Amino acid sequence: MGKQDVGITVSKKEDFSEWYTQVVLKAKLADYAPVKGLIVLRPDGYSIWESLRSTFDKKFARNGIRNGFLPILIPESLLGKEQKHFAGFNPEVFWVTHSGTNEIGDRLALRPTSETLAYTLYSKWIQSWRDLPLKINFWNTALRAEIKATKPFLRTSEFLWQEGHTVHSTKEEAEKEVLKILEIYKNTVEEELAIPVITGKKSEKEKFVGAEYTTTMESIMPDGKALQMGTSHFLAQNFSKPFEVKFADKDNVEHFAWQTSWGVSWRLIGAMIMAHGDDKGLVLPPKVAPMQVVVVPIYKNAEDGEKVISKVDEILDSLEQKSIRVHVDNREGLSPGFKFNDWELKGVPLRIEIGPKDIENQSMVVAKRYNLEKIKLNLNEIEKIPDILDEIQIEMLEKAKSESKDNTKNITDYEEFKEKIEDGGFFNSPWCGKLECEDKIKEETGAEIRVIPFNSEDNTKKCVYCKEPSVSIPIFARGY
Amino acid sequence: MGKQDVGITVSKKEDFSEWYTQVVLKAKLADYAPVKGLIVLRPDGYSIWESLRSTFDKKFARNGIRNGFLPILIPESLLGKEQKHFAGFNPEVFWVTHSGTNEIGDRLALRPTSETLAYTLYSKWIQSWRDLPLKINFWNTALRAEIKATKPFLRTSEFLWQEGHTVHSTKEEAEKEVLKILEIYKNTVEEELAIPVITGKKSEKEKFVGAEYTTTMESIMPDGKALQMGTSHFLAQNFSKPFEVKFADKDNVEHFAWQTSWGVSWRLIGAMIMAHGDDKGLVLPPKVAPMQVVVVPIYKNAEDGEKVISKVDEILDSLEQKSIRVHVDNREGLSPGFKFNDWELKGVPLRIEIGPKDIENQSMVVAKRYNLEKIKLNLNEIEKIPDILDEIQIEMLEKAKSESKDNTKNITDYEEFKEKIEDGGFFNSPWCGKLECEDKIKEETGAEIRVIPFNSEDNTKKCVYCKEPSVSIPIFARGY
Repeated sequence: MGKQDVGITVSKKEDFSEWYTQVVLKAKLADYAPVKGLIVLRPDGYSIWESLRSTFDKKFARNGIRNGFLPILIPESLLGKEQKHFAGFNPEVFWVTHSGTNEIGDRLALRPTSETLAYTLYSKWIQSWRDLPLKINFWNTALRAEIKATKPFLRTSEFLWQEGHTVHSTKEEAEKEVLKILEIYKNTVEEELAIPVITGKKSEKEKFVGAEYTTTMESIMPDGKALQMGTSHFLAQNFSKPFEVKFADKDNVEHFAWQTSWGVSWRLIGAMIMAHGDDKGLVLPPKVAPMQVVVVPIYKNAEDGEKVISKVDEILDSLEQKSIRVHVDNREGLSPGFKFNDWELKGVPLRIEIGPKDIENQSMVVAKRYNLEKIKLNLNEIEKIPDILDEIQIEMLEKAKSESKDNTKNITDYEEFKEKIEDGGFFNSPWCGKLECEDKIKEETGAEIRVIPFNSEDNTKKCVYCKEPSVSIPIFARGY
Repeated sequence: MGKQDVGITVSKKEDFSEWYTQVVLKAKLADYAPVKGLIVLRPDGYSIWESLRSTFDKKFARNGIRNGFLPILIPESLLGKEQKHFAGFNPEVFWVTHSGTNEIGDRLALRPTSETLAYTLYSKWIQSWRDLPLKINFWNTALRAEIKATKPFLRTSEFLWQEGHTVHSTKEEAEKEVLKILEIYKNTVEEELAIPVITGKKSEKEKFVGAEYTTTMESIMPDGKALQMGTSHFLAQNFSKPFEVKFADKDNVEHFAWQTSWGVSWRLIGAMIMAHGDDKGLVLPPKVAPMQVVVVPIYKNAEDGEKVISKVDEILDSLEQKSIRVHVDNREGLSPGFKFNDWELKGVPLRIEIGPKDIENQSMVVAKRYNLEKIKLNLNEIEKIPDILDEIQIEMLEKAKSESKDNTKNITDYEEFKEKIEDGGFFNSPWCGKLECEDKIKEETGAEIRVIPFNSEDNTKKCVYCKEPSVSIPIFARGY
């Protein structure tokens, strides 16, 4: 393979879509499966998911949420029990019709989401107020047949996600849970993946089928398209009634329960790739990087080699003691330049280079992946590496915030809206609250309401479309 | 609900099968899903799986194995590429024939196991000796339609498992890996679940379709039936040839690689329930128990309550500081007796009872679940709890070993074999090595060769069936 084939061959700016696919494949995060629309995660890709899972698990546990397991097959009759919900997923459902050579009577759906299955069980498990709140999360996959072109992590027919399903005795408690989860989502994405998000509600048109309302977090990607990063739904009693999720209160009177459901998927990994990657490849935030530091020993003869390797071993020990995920690249027959490119492609946050001259000077070169900056540290400054990683994590979020800001515009004039939408971005534009205007804008520009940010109510402006008085200033954008 | 309904209503000895099902359901480990043959894991059941996963992950990582993700759908054409393998699974495969209303050309199988899919990818990922060994594990589910009656954890049409797939440049290295994994399996099951296992090889008849040989670990359950606890297969080049898993060696010559695959499933949880449970319900080994200690405060009036609760809080703090998973049962309106039964049903390893008298005497009652022993400890002996839990873990394994020994017989006479097989158990019986005898024994007694233990070669005895000279002394048993 020539160098051309190994590295990224297009620029992020010029061909974002091809750039993205190359980064995913060449950094060995994922690969295509034999079935169209499905992907496989290689260890470096899956490790990022494991890191997110572990962070969410800790936060969920602190919030009294435990994990469970649901099977993947749902009978058609059950899926159809909440009609609106079913209609929303129907065209995307994979159907199992045979086991071996036997035809199955009631066809089985591969779960597009598990509300219907979970709530069938919840209705058995919940009898009294003592059983509430019931808060269970499921780490599994969902299957939704994609007809459009697929993109690893962003649009695939099977995707890894978590789906949480909680049940409460009061409306207030359920609504509080919806927001609590959205807050966990937001701080995890910002702190772990260094991607800023905007939280708020979906419009009636864009909400989850079956929810009373949907809260969402949205991000703007460098190509100007919006990405939905996670949603938390207030289901009210929309499912508890058809599925009979009822409880006897302390006074022994039976009530329908109040429910929530919420999920994030591996789409978050796609967002991370898009937000931080550059023309050299992947750029990983230190907190989720499978490997945080790579050490490249540089030497030409055996004598130098011995000195360098012995120092590198010290560095390795010292970093491992600090629980830094570190790797020494001692592959033979590959040049330092090749190795540098290789680890840059894979997005390792810090690279330490060390050769005989460095040892003479008691120094080492430390290269930061995210801004390609190189600094010289004294060998005894190895203690500083954890702090440098923390700083990188923070600086990456700041950088992403500033890019996100550059990609956000206040637009009140519809002509300007139509013109500028071609360049993408988040548009803060006043809206009258009517579906009609929302539909027209979508039809004419391809932009939809991504999120109505919390506290964006505003009746002093005029709707960007109809010029009637506004009710809020949602964020419009074209989306993934 | 009367007490009858809440607790276990049959004895383990008299109706093992019904006892087992009641324990699973009433201890709230699992429940039936709406589709026959599928189950759901409730948080206490899933937590045991998470604990096992975490232990295996640590051991796999130390052995250079990383995790990945594979999709659940495999095209029929791919599954059929290794013919013997395909034939083995064909009657059990669930087939997806439609997505939405569209018929799918090449039907899609829900993975019964992922060799064919993984190796299609491995053949792309592996080019040179530098890429080897490649060792990836996948935590997912497998789907195999069960026609026989299903049993939670033991026989279900979808089950949680891990499947590991490794590729090596030499036969020796691959064979070493097979045994290394079997060793990890054995010590995890013995140390975490307190169940003794016997390791060795499967006979040709019983090996995994497509493997050159299968190594296995087997346990004998209290009802006298054998349970396969995990298998590790040497695949030789049986898959690398049809799937073209090849590598260029240092001399640039291409070779077919050597492969292994291996797996354990949630069947291990079933084994744990059977091995340790009693007529009061579940008995959990401390290492995998979601809750290791439950504290039940006992008092009648508010004044006593205050004293007791304050002491209980101290105990809670002290145990949490020692990373013990502890819970205080302060449910109101339930009697201590009800609570004791409830936690015994759920198998919590240690219960601490504490009332006003105990506080006066500076003591507490500590009840061990596995042998129902109660001891009195001084309140300042709370430090001892972690050690007591460790002792229980060891004693449970000893107890299970002794039961397993009682259930193992040396049988050389076929009449005795036929008579005693009705009571179940592991039979050490000499065998000539011929399929014919193995088939006849299975046909006439229902017993099969579960495992040919390592170092059980013996040519000094006579085959239990044909009386020809033996080659080994396998373990025969009827199995799950």
